[in-house]
Amino acid sequence: MTQGRPDGNSFRWRCICAYDGTDFAGWQKQPGGIAVQDKIEQALEEIFGQSVHTIGAGRTDAGVHACGQVFHFDVPWPHSSESMLQAMRSTFPAGISPRKLQKASKGFHALLSAKGKRYRYRACKGWATPQDDRFVLSLKHRDFDLDRMQEGASRLLGEHDFSSFSSKRRGLAEQNAVRKVWRIEVLKKADAYDFLIEGSGFLYKMVRSLVGALLDVGEGKMEPNQLEKILKLCMRTECVVSAPAKGLSLEKVFYRSPKGSE
Amino acid sequence: MTQGRPDGNSFRWRCICAYDGTDFAGWQKQPGGIAVQDKIEQALEEIFGQSVHTIGAGRTDAGVHACGQVFHFDVPWPHSSESMLQAMRSTFPAGISPRKLQKASKGFHALLSAKGKRYRYRACKGWATPQDDRFVLSLKHRDFDLDRMQEGASRLLGEHDFSSFSSKRRGLAEQNAVRKVWRIEVLKKADAYDFLIEGSGFLYKMVRSLVGALLDVGEGKMEPNQLEKILKLCMRTECVVSAPAKGLSLEKVFYRSPKGSE
Repeated sequence: MTQGRPDGNSFRWRCICAYDGTDFAGWQKQPGGIAVQDKIEQALEEIFGQSVHTIGAGRTDAGVHACGQVFHFDVPWPHSSESMLQAMRSTFPAGISPRKLQKASKGFHALLSAKGKRYRYRACKGWATPQDDRFVLSLKHRDFDLDRMQEGASRLLGEHDFSSFSSKRRGLAEQNAVRKVWRIEVLKKADAYDFLIEGSGFLYKMVRSLVGALLDVGEGKMEPNQLEKILKLCMRTECVVSAPAKGLSLEKVFYRSPKGSE
Repeated sequence: MTQGRPDGNSFRWRCICAYDGTDFAGWQKQPGGIAVQDKIEQALEEIFGQSVHTIGAGRTDAGVHACGQVFHFDVPWPHSSESMLQAMRSTFPAGISPRKLQKASKGFHALLSAKGKRYRYRACKGWATPQDDRFVLSLKHRDFDLDRMQEGASRLLGEHDFSSFSSKRRGLAEQNAVRKVWRIEVLKKADAYDFLIEGSGFLYKMVRSLVGALLDVGEGKMEPNQLEKILKLCMRTECVVSAPAKGLSLEKVFYRSPKGSE
């Protein structure tokens, strides 16, 4: 199985996939085999009788969820995509659910073709119900000011070096930390806060760091304009505390330039 | 701890409680201690340093959820209900969440004072997302006709002997099977069907049997008017297949006569 372009007998398949990240070690495969990608590749091997290599659009961390992760892989399959999707549904383990499957053009690449991503972070006042508890951060007794969070969010929009709002991944070389964020909204619905963040790409722990900082602004621990000062440091400091993984979900991967991205 | 009325030093407490029933053996305590009630009584014993007996409003089956189960118990507690609720939140295991706690009158009894209950059964076309999968029945490739289900639901309203739509609980003596159902609605929202059922009380597996029969009507396996014929049999037959537990939730217990119940 090639990773670049499919060989003569194979087609390239593009799958939109949802998962409950609670019990997985993140997306990226790793020794031990308890990542989402491991589980998917094990299932695909069972279906096709040969090892299948997948490439995902976003490397979600341990405990982070997805409703719209995208991955591609190359296999020969003379039948319909519906029949392959059905085989995947029956073979994927509980908590990982393929939502859509389609034949992709040979040049499509889940990671390299992506133009942007949307993440959603869910938090609620008080205590989440057991129905929501795996996907929503419970804010318990803490009180938040929506206006302050929205004001803070507006300070983070745009193209910046986001080093201050990311963590270094162990074993990875330094990378260019400039990313463009074209949407940060804090929405309030009843007792819930949803943080919607769209951008060209995201550094390790970047979304959770942005949300953590906005929560601190909302709680009065920081002023909205401090976020700009932190940005300009271009260096992670103790001022920024990442929000826990459980509230975060990769909602959508854009393969055409989304509105607002220009 | 008394079950009838609290003794001189105790107060009676009324708790509204939610749980994800997936990993529990139902509400009712049992040898082995893996029921919701067992877990709650173990937590209360930890808080109060003495065994605490609880009485629940509804005996949900294994795998059935609740957002509005109600139980009562008697303990002396000189502090605020908020502080007790906080202790319960920290002590209850994952998947069981106390939502509200208040001091009740001495005569209040979670089971005997109840005037009715509302259950909600959730099903969806296709496959539930991992976010919903513990709480929603996936209808997969099956197709349903909403009008037929609504027509079927209207045939089940009223006061009837519901023996045909229940199962015998092993080891329990025969009981009067007449129950009043004053609301059965089938609501469609996007790709989801919600079945809302309210009544004076429910026999063992009654809600799941009603939903199972309505799904069969919706799928064309049965005519709506057959439901009336089945009701009149006053006997469980193979015509009725219970819907799986996972979609069902005890949503509310009424302690005043709800609208429509007269």
